Amino acid sequence: MSVTAPRGFRAAGVAAGLKPDGARDVAVIVNDGPSRSAAAVFTANRVQAAPVQWSRQVAKGGRARAVVVNSGGANACTGAPGFQDTHATAERAAHALGDSAAEILVCSTGLIGERLPMPELLSGVDMAVADAARDGGLDAADAIRTTDTVAKIAFRRGADYTVGGMAKGAGMLAPALATMICVLTTDAELTPEQCDRLLRAATAATFDRIDADGCMSTNDTVVLMASGASGAAPDEEEFAALLTEVCDELAGQLIADAEGATKAISVEVVGAASEDDALQAARAVAGNNLFKCAMFGEDPNWGRVLAAVGTTTAAFEPDQLNVAINGVWVCRKGAVGDDRSKVDLSGRDVAVTVDLSAGGAAATVRTTDLTTAYVHENSAYSS
Amino acid sequence: MSVTAPRGFRAAGVAAGLKPDGARDVAVIVNDGPSRSAAAVFTANRVQAAPVQWSRQVAKGGRARAVVVNSGGANACTGAPGFQDTHATAERAAHALGDSAAEILVCSTGLIGERLPMPELLSGVDMAVADAARDGGLDAADAIRTTDTVAKIAFRRGADYTVGGMAKGAGMLAPALATMICVLTTDAELTPEQCDRLLRAATAATFDRIDADGCMSTNDTVVLMASGASGAAPDEEEFAALLTEVCDELAGQLIADAEGATKAISVEVVGAASEDDALQAARAVAGNNLFKCAMFGEDPNWGRVLAAVGTTTAAFEPDQLNVAINGVWVCRKGAVGDDRSKVDLSGRDVAVTVDLSAGGAAATVRTTDLTTAYVHENSAYSS
Repeated sequence: MSVTAPRGFRAAGVAAGLKPDGARDVAVIVNDGPSRSAAAVFTANRVQAAPVQWSRQVAKGGRARAVVVNSGGANACTGAPGFQDTHATAERAAHALGDSAAEILVCSTGLIGERLPMPELLSGVDMAVADAARDGGLDAADAIRTTDTVAKIAFRRGADYTVGGMAKGAGMLAPALATMICVLTTDAELTPEQCDRLLRAATAATFDRIDADGCMSTNDTVVLMASGASGAAPDEEEFAALLTEVCDELAGQLIADAEGATKAISVEVVGAASEDDALQAARAVAGNNLFKCAMFGEDPNWGRVLAAVGTTTAAFEPDQLNVAINGVWVCRKGAVGDDRSKVDLSGRDVAVTVDLSAGGAAATVRTTDLTTAYVHENSAYSS
Repeated sequence: MSVTAPRGFRAAGVAAGLKPDGARDVAVIVNDGPSRSAAAVFTANRVQAAPVQWSRQVAKGGRARAVVVNSGGANACTGAPGFQDTHATAERAAHALGDSAAEILVCSTGLIGERLPMPELLSGVDMAVADAARDGGLDAADAIRTTDTVAKIAFRRGADYTVGGMAKGAGMLAPALATMICVLTTDAELTPEQCDRLLRAATAATFDRIDADGCMSTNDTVVLMASGASGAAPDEEEFAALLTEVCDELAGQLIADAEGATKAISVEVVGAASEDDALQAARAVAGNNLFKCAMFGEDPNWGRVLAAVGTTTAAFEPDQLNVAINGVWVCRKGAVGDDRSKVDLSGRDVAVTVDLSAGGAAATVRTTDLTTAYVHENSAYSS
């Protein structure tokens, strides 16, 4: 279902020859309206790929006719020629759609520092626009994969509208987005301002709270397009909840497919004086290499959790910290708690709870373990 | 030579039974004066081991008769009983030396969250004080090792005085110290205030600029003791340079022996608007897992260097960044530079230079690669 679950959208994913193995590598998602409100959020990295620079400008207009996504090359750190390549890509899609390039977003993912093979990419855009169809959502989700082992899609039905989405991203999933590209669609009737506000809130609560390796990409982009094809102006609270659910489900799929990971870890911080404190502490634990190695080794090493929390400015007293790993409170009041041999870490899912004993706020950050396979993949994959 | 290179110091390292393999695990370094000025710096982690809490108080007095260091247990996250253990350790050394516990520093290193075996430790203190001798520096350096594969020692001769030192630390070497313990000695005549000021300056320029895995320990301690046995009040500038050299050499030994590392990487940032900017950018690169994996894979992946620099607030324009790896400028003006195949990464030492093109300031941070062996060691070693 993916991005074509809502009415008003067509999509396609084609093999244009950007990937050496001949797999799909160019996707388009076309909004046929009647409206075309849109918004996007981007990486906070100051080194931004050409497509991010381009799409930022498009998003400012609040309207989008289509998104072109290519895998097989990030078009990052490619200078002015790389920006021209992105511009040419948008122009080609605009021409094929009989529309304006100023309403075409472009996303790219893959290796940094290399120019894209433009003849292949441009004919790929032609092919994809020609192929774009109501049943093309899954092909599009397939075409945006890099080291992703599976396509990531999700959708939710509202009262009389639908929210759909697809995402890619398998490594570099860090706060403030990740090496991830996500396209969200809805046939609800929304203004550009609603798109922007609702998208920012949904991503802040989901994609911004996953962290695979603490690294921040040059290409992260999340786009929301609203076709208005349902004719329904949604209840904003209900829509926000559904959009967040779709994002949350996609974020979970990203963590589940993170490069080389053997554990999907949720770090929940409770008893915090504020949500900011809870988030800061959860991020510190989720980003701690030694903790992540311990999880890979199935070692309920709560000392590393405490050492990570101790690097934050969150309100807490060290001798009031409690830590549970998969339900066993192995650390109580900053010291040894229940028998750590009772902790079962054999499964893929791990739940770590840190109680700061400083208030009533909470937050959760999801991460993965740090594995020998992660190191292997990222020492071999030249990006 | 180590900590007994300067006159006025005795040391010993004995096997007290804290380590299961029967290796040396308790060291003492005794200052026989005539003066006993001292200073210490500690981890910035808010979760602090009992010996750090104790030694902070001792250091405030500006005087130290001796330092007791044990490996085989960090005495961290052990609550009030753990603090009592540290106190008892200091009292035992004080008794053996006929002195006051208020001038005995204690350092511990090893597993977090377990009480120390006190009968063994206390008899180890007795043995070590009894053994302490002018030629005991190397045994002491040996006794403080945990996963260190070699003892780390260094010394420098001044005009008429000497600076000596020993250190341990093989993982968790992060900014704001590391899981490292370092004892520095000198027979120069110094006031407590001089010790404090000179030690802070030397550690800020050395130990604070190494980062193996971004993790900050609960036990980091660097101590400087001055015996005054040379009778020489040193030229402060000369002394500062020698002390910094000793710290720098020990920091280099720590990086060279970092757990599982195959590369010793120096990240130099030049052309920065300020030293703070240079440091921030260097730390961001040195702490980036993807960059560190690329170094393990001997892949001159400058895109990951740029992506790391892009996460900082340092002054720079993305299209003015230059990056050299082992002397080859693989990135010029934010895009592809010289042929990356010319980069030789086969050796152990790697030099990365980032030119921010924003000013005249520079700074260097040293780190290691992220390896499968690092993950293996830190998933198996319960700390």
